[in-house]
Amino acid sequence: MQQDFSSVEAFSRLLHDLPGEVPGARAAAQARNAQLTKPPGALGRLEDLAAWYCAWRGNPTPEIRAPQVVVFAGNHGVTAQGISAFPAEVTAQMVANFTAGGAAINQLARLFGARLDVVELALERPTADITQGPAMTGAEFLEALKIGWQAVDEKSDLLVLGEMGIGNTTAAAAMAMALFGGPAEGWTGRGTGLDDAGLGHKAEVVARAVAANAGCQSDGLEVLRCLGGREIAAMAGAMARARLLRIPLILDGVICTAAAACLAAVRNTALDHAVAGHRSAEVSHGRLLENIGKEPLLSLDMRLGEGSGAALAIGVVKAALACHSGMATFAEAGVAGG
Amino acid sequence: MQQDFSSVEAFSRLLHDLPGEVPGARAAAQARNAQLTKPPGALGRLEDLAAWYCAWRGNPTPEIRAPQVVVFAGNHGVTAQGISAFPAEVTAQMVANFTAGGAAINQLARLFGARLDVVELALERPTADITQGPAMTGAEFLEALKIGWQAVDEKSDLLVLGEMGIGNTTAAAAMAMALFGGPAEGWTGRGTGLDDAGLGHKAEVVARAVAANAGCQSDGLEVLRCLGGREIAAMAGAMARARLLRIPLILDGVICTAAAACLAAVRNTALDHAVAGHRSAEVSHGRLLENIGKEPLLSLDMRLGEGSGAALAIGVVKAALACHSGMATFAEAGVAGG
Repeated sequence: MQQDFSSVEAFSRLLHDLPGEVPGARAAAQARNAQLTKPPGALGRLEDLAAWYCAWRGNPTPEIRAPQVVVFAGNHGVTAQGISAFPAEVTAQMVANFTAGGAAINQLARLFGARLDVVELALERPTADITQGPAMTGAEFLEALKIGWQAVDEKSDLLVLGEMGIGNTTAAAAMAMALFGGPAEGWTGRGTGLDDAGLGHKAEVVARAVAANAGCQSDGLEVLRCLGGREIAAMAGAMARARLLRIPLILDGVICTAAAACLAAVRNTALDHAVAGHRSAEVSHGRLLENIGKEPLLSLDMRLGEGSGAALAIGVVKAALACHSGMATFAEAGVAGG
Repeated sequence: MQQDFSSVEAFSRLLHDLPGEVPGARAAAQARNAQLTKPPGALGRLEDLAAWYCAWRGNPTPEIRAPQVVVFAGNHGVTAQGISAFPAEVTAQMVANFTAGGAAINQLARLFGARLDVVELALERPTADITQGPAMTGAEFLEALKIGWQAVDEKSDLLVLGEMGIGNTTAAAAMAMALFGGPAEGWTGRGTGLDDAGLGHKAEVVARAVAANAGCQSDGLEVLRCLGGREIAAMAGAMARARLLRIPLILDGVICTAAAACLAAVRNTALDHAVAGHRSAEVSHGRLLENIGKEPLLSLDMRLGEGSGAALAIGVVKAALACHSGMATFAEAGVAGG
């Protein structure tokens, strides 16, 4: 198995070579689950989560000890079109807030025992305005994929990918429209809090961006290069690296899911190592998740980004594994009915 | 404010005297929330949860340091009617499993830093068969209420109430039917795993139980005495004590919610200090929650009891407060847009 890639084409080929579940591991986990002191199925989706996690780790009784949250930050030339309620300067200001420990993701990572890494991607050089043409050159795109790839710690045992980038819900909406079709209005949400007039304008910008990059639709990675952003490409690179390392991944909101959908367009099983942490309040997220076949664990009307919804789901995944690996079997406990 | 009760009538009167939110505390929490480094509303239901918690604790920046889980166990004479997939002996066997640390609730309590107390209520003396008449005498009911009342630690800062009792989903279904009407089939679920024939029989038993206790419907506490069980009455006693102590409460599944509904029948604001931790897979739980006006935080197809769904929601409540109390304000972080 190759450990890195020297071109976008090599990255695309690598996606097809990434490993699957550890053979036999899911069946071993399910056999253990059937013996635990509870009625069959009574832990609901926690049981499925535990089997999924065990299958990727190749361990019938794992513990989650080293979760990693990586927040990627990038700036977007499309902010020139006036599509955000916040100015572009807020991206760098929020990165400083992450570094100082003051953001929501800091509190969530600490609560669930996760390491938090913040990766800035050339904030002083926004991507090109996607209403005028591709967001990134091939070289810029490759660099962003590699930064994401390298950000994943091989010792991590659960991964959450977050982002910060004023304008990036516009990019994600354009990516979704390019990948799945339909009118821009169906993919465009209020982001950090647009009013109705702002929302209508944003949808019009999304439609223009897709029209300006009309050649990209047939290739998921071209969608990511032309309509995404550096932080979104980095998320995709990190997702692929996690798969190579068999590190289970929790997807966050619309931006993270749009990155995932680009990989799924290349290989439809590319996200088998991922679960959807939550369904965001951003209007298109439910549809995006359906398109990649993921059912969210949480639905709490969150729409912050930063990886916050996925970080909250670390608690659910940890709980699933705590039960799976820590509970007594019927035989061990002397309980009838096993 | 009286600190205890000497009769069921006194308990009923006490319910009307229980305190509300600390005056001004919700507004103070909401004022802080508006200054935190995030778009308004971007943390969704976490923001509502934080305001609710602060309102009951009277603190604008609380931390959750001492959650308590109490699991009450009782036996039910109605098991003579063959309404469970598991024998009645399993109640005591599972209590031993709780004590040994082998059950799901042990793993969840440990994961979320909660103290776990297990309270047995006369397992050797099942309640009377509710198809023949009231489950408990007035004296038995009062004793169970008091045991629940006394189980709450006044130093706890978040409470989860769980239960174990083979047959208690039959009791909860009968309670729901008595409180809210409609056919027994609409309130009767598969419990620990009945097949279709078993489910039909259970609904018929539920209907007979309600008919055999036809005088109870007009009084929530009479519903609890006649159709409930010792562990269910204890949960109600603990809910009232939590309210007196202004300890926020997370409701669990159908049995916990049926106990809550009896208190709400006495005073419709009696559960204002509670949130619904989850919607269980037991068929009637969603309707029960609607009837008491609670929207669940989680919906993961769990149906174990033991307080497991509510315990999982401790993570969500902790996350809400970690963000609320730990995040920087716009002014502190130097972020534009506050």
